[in-house]
Amino acid sequence: MDNLKPPEFLMIPGPTPVPKDILEIIARPPIGHRSAEFSNILTSVSKNLQALGQTESDVFILTGSGTLAMEAAIANTVSPGTKVLSLVTGVFGERWVSIAKAYGAEVERLDYTAGTAVDVSQLANKLKEDKSIKIVTITHNETSTGVINDLRQIGHLVRQHGALSLVDAVTSFGAINIPIDEWHIDVLVTGSQKALMLPPGLSMIFFGNRAWTAQATCKSPRFYLDLTRCKKSLAANSTPFTPNVSFICALQKSLELIQSEGIEKVQARHLKLRTMLRAGLRSMGLKLFVDDDSASPTITAILPPEKLNVSDIRQALKQDYSIVVADGQDSLKGKIFRIGHMGYVFERDILMTLASLQAVLKKLGRDTTAQPAIKAAVQAAGKAK
Amino acid sequence: MDNLKPPEFLMIPGPTPVPKDILEIIARPPIGHRSAEFSNILTSVSKNLQALGQTESDVFILTGSGTLAMEAAIANTVSPGTKVLSLVTGVFGERWVSIAKAYGAEVERLDYTAGTAVDVSQLANKLKEDKSIKIVTITHNETSTGVINDLRQIGHLVRQHGALSLVDAVTSFGAINIPIDEWHIDVLVTGSQKALMLPPGLSMIFFGNRAWTAQATCKSPRFYLDLTRCKKSLAANSTPFTPNVSFICALQKSLELIQSEGIEKVQARHLKLRTMLRAGLRSMGLKLFVDDDSASPTITAILPPEKLNVSDIRQALKQDYSIVVADGQDSLKGKIFRIGHMGYVFERDILMTLASLQAVLKKLGRDTTAQPAIKAAVQAAGKAK
Repeated sequence: MDNLKPPEFLMIPGPTPVPKDILEIIARPPIGHRSAEFSNILTSVSKNLQALGQTESDVFILTGSGTLAMEAAIANTVSPGTKVLSLVTGVFGERWVSIAKAYGAEVERLDYTAGTAVDVSQLANKLKEDKSIKIVTITHNETSTGVINDLRQIGHLVRQHGALSLVDAVTSFGAINIPIDEWHIDVLVTGSQKALMLPPGLSMIFFGNRAWTAQATCKSPRFYLDLTRCKKSLAANSTPFTPNVSFICALQKSLELIQSEGIEKVQARHLKLRTMLRAGLRSMGLKLFVDDDSASPTITAILPPEKLNVSDIRQALKQDYSIVVADGQDSLKGKIFRIGHMGYVFERDILMTLASLQAVLKKLGRDTTAQPAIKAAVQAAGKAK
Repeated sequence: MDNLKPPEFLMIPGPTPVPKDILEIIARPPIGHRSAEFSNILTSVSKNLQALGQTESDVFILTGSGTLAMEAAIANTVSPGTKVLSLVTGVFGERWVSIAKAYGAEVERLDYTAGTAVDVSQLANKLKEDKSIKIVTITHNETSTGVINDLRQIGHLVRQHGALSLVDAVTSFGAINIPIDEWHIDVLVTGSQKALMLPPGLSMIFFGNRAWTAQATCKSPRFYLDLTRCKKSLAANSTPFTPNVSFICALQKSLELIQSEGIEKVQARHLKLRTMLRAGLRSMGLKLFVDDDSASPTITAILPPEKLNVSDIRQALKQDYSIVVADGQDSLKGKIFRIGHMGYVFERDILMTLASLQAVLKKLGRDTTAQPAIKAAVQAAGKAK
C-alpha cells in the first residue's frame, strides 16, 4: 500500500478540476429524459449557453466528445468537393483538416510554425485571391501549443469574404469572452470538460442562420449529427436521442456558476492566471514556447531545461506532488510540457504548481529555488488586477 | 413546497435505476484519459465486455447514445447503394432504416405488426429469393413494443446467406445472454443506461472479422465513428478522442456486478421479473400487448383498461407513488403504456409496481384490488425458480 497522498490535481488541458457541487449533481440518480423536469432543465441550459455566447444562434448539446461536435459542424456544411480553407496552428487545426477530408472536402491550408498564431494579413490576402473558398476552419485556442488566435479579426475577415467560419472553441469557450454574433462566427463548438468544469462526455455546437442556409443543401450523410433533427426536438424542449441527462443537469449548475461570477471576471481570472504563471516560469529561467502576444489564457507550453526530460519532470510532479501536467502531442511529444489552467482553477493552484515545479527541478538537478518565482507570480497578479 | 415524497423510481426502458456504488464512482473527480490508471481500466472494461458477450470480436466504447453506435455500425459497413434488409418490429427497427437511408443504402424491409416478432421462416424465404442482400439490420429487443426477436435463429440464417448482421441489443445486452460468436452476430451495439445500470452517455459496438472485411471497402464518410481509428487507439490501451472517463470507470464496476451475479442468473432474474409482472397484470384483468412467446424479458407493454387514459394512469403513478412508467411511442402513444424492468431491478420492484398500479386504477374508477395480482405474481415467481 502506498503512503497517503494528496488527491490528484489535474493541471492538464482537460479533463479539468470539477467543483464538488457539480460532482454531487452528477451523482444523483438520473431522471427520465422525457420528463417535464428534464425539459425545463434543457430549455434553461440552452438559453444560458446562448447568453454566455451572446448569440441568437441555435445551440445544441451533443452527447459525445468535442471532436463529435467538430464533425457535426463539417457533416452539416461540407459536401464532397466543397472548398475549405483550414488555418492550422497545431494538432487541433490538423483535426479540422482530417474531418473535412473524410467528408470529401477540397482542403486548402495555411500552416503556421508550432507555437505561433494565424497571420491575419496573410489570411486576408488568401481570401482575396481565392473567391471559391466556402468554409474556413479555425482553432480559437490551439491546445497542442498554447496559442490563442485572434478570433475577432478572423471572424470579421471570413464574413467579409462571404465564407462560413467553423470555430473550435473547445478550450476557450467559458474561459474567454466570445461574443459569437459580434465576432461574426457562424458555427462554434465546445466541450464539457474544459472551462465548463464538467467531466468529459458532452459537447455543444452553436449554429447560426448562415450555417443553416448551407445545411439545407449539404449532401453529407448524417443521422445522429443531423442538426435539423436536433432543432426539431429542441423546439419541443427535448433531444432526438437519449442524452447524458446527468451531465446536462450538471451543466445547468456550471453555467450558473459562470453567470454569477460574470464572463468578464472569469476571463480576467484566466488572463491573470496566465500572467502569473508566465512570470513565475520566466523567473525560474524556463523558456516559454509561445510569445506573450499569442499566449493562451488557458494553456501554457514550456520547454524543458537543457538536459532534462519532459517525462522525468511530469513523473516527478505526479509522484511527489500528485500534480498532473501534459506532455506535448505528436511531433511535440517530449519537446514541451503543457500546463492547463482553465475552468475551476485559481491563483493558489498556480502558486502550488510553480512551487512544486521548483521543488521537482531541484530534485532533478536543476536548482531554481533561489529564483523568486513566487514573488514574480504574485507581483504579476497584482499588476493584472 | 410539496410534501415529502419517496425518491422517483424509474420503471421505464431507460434510463434505469443506477446502483449507489456506481453513482459514487461517477461522482469522483475525473482522472486524465491519457493516464496509466485510465488505460488499465479501459483494457479491463474491454475484456470484460468481450467476456460478457462471449466473443472474440473487437469492442469499442463510444461516448454517445445508443443511436450513435447504430450509426457507427452503418457508417462502417454501408456504402451508397449497398443492399440492406431491415427487419422492422417497431420504432427502433425503423431507426435502422432511417440511418441506412441517410447513408445511401438501398433498403428493403420486412414489416411486422406492432407487438409481434420477426417471422423467421419469412426471413428465410426472403434471403433465399434475394442474394443481393449484403446487410441485415435486426432489433433484438424492440423497446417500443416489448417484443423480443429470436436472435439465435436470425443470426444463423443471415450467416448462412452470407450477409452481415447488425444487431441493436441496446435493451437486451447485459440482461439476456447473447453469445455473440455462437449466434453468428457480426456487429452488435448496446448502451450504458439499460441493463448495464449506468446513466445514459456511453454506447458500445462489437465488431467482428467479417465486419472488418466489409469496413475495408466501405466508402461512407466517418471520423469520430471510424472504427479503424478506435482499433488503433485501443491497441495502445486508449481512445482516439477524450472519452467519458467517469462513466467508463463506472462501467468497470457494473461489469463486475454482472460477472459476480453471473450472466445466467442475471438472465434468469429478468425472465422471472417478466413472468411475475405478466401474471400480476393478467390477474388484474389487464391486456398485454405482446404474446407470451415473444414477450421481452426487459419491457412489458400493456393496453389501458377501457375508458381509461394512458396519461392519467402514468400521471397518477407518478403523483401518488413517484413511479415513472413510459407512454407508447409515435403511433402507439396513448394506446399502450410500458413498464421497463431491466438492470438494477428486483422482485420487490415488480410487487411495488403491481400494487401501486392496483391502487391507481382503483382511484381512476377501475377497482382491481379484489383480484389477487400479488398472489399471482408471487406464484409465478415460485414457478420461475
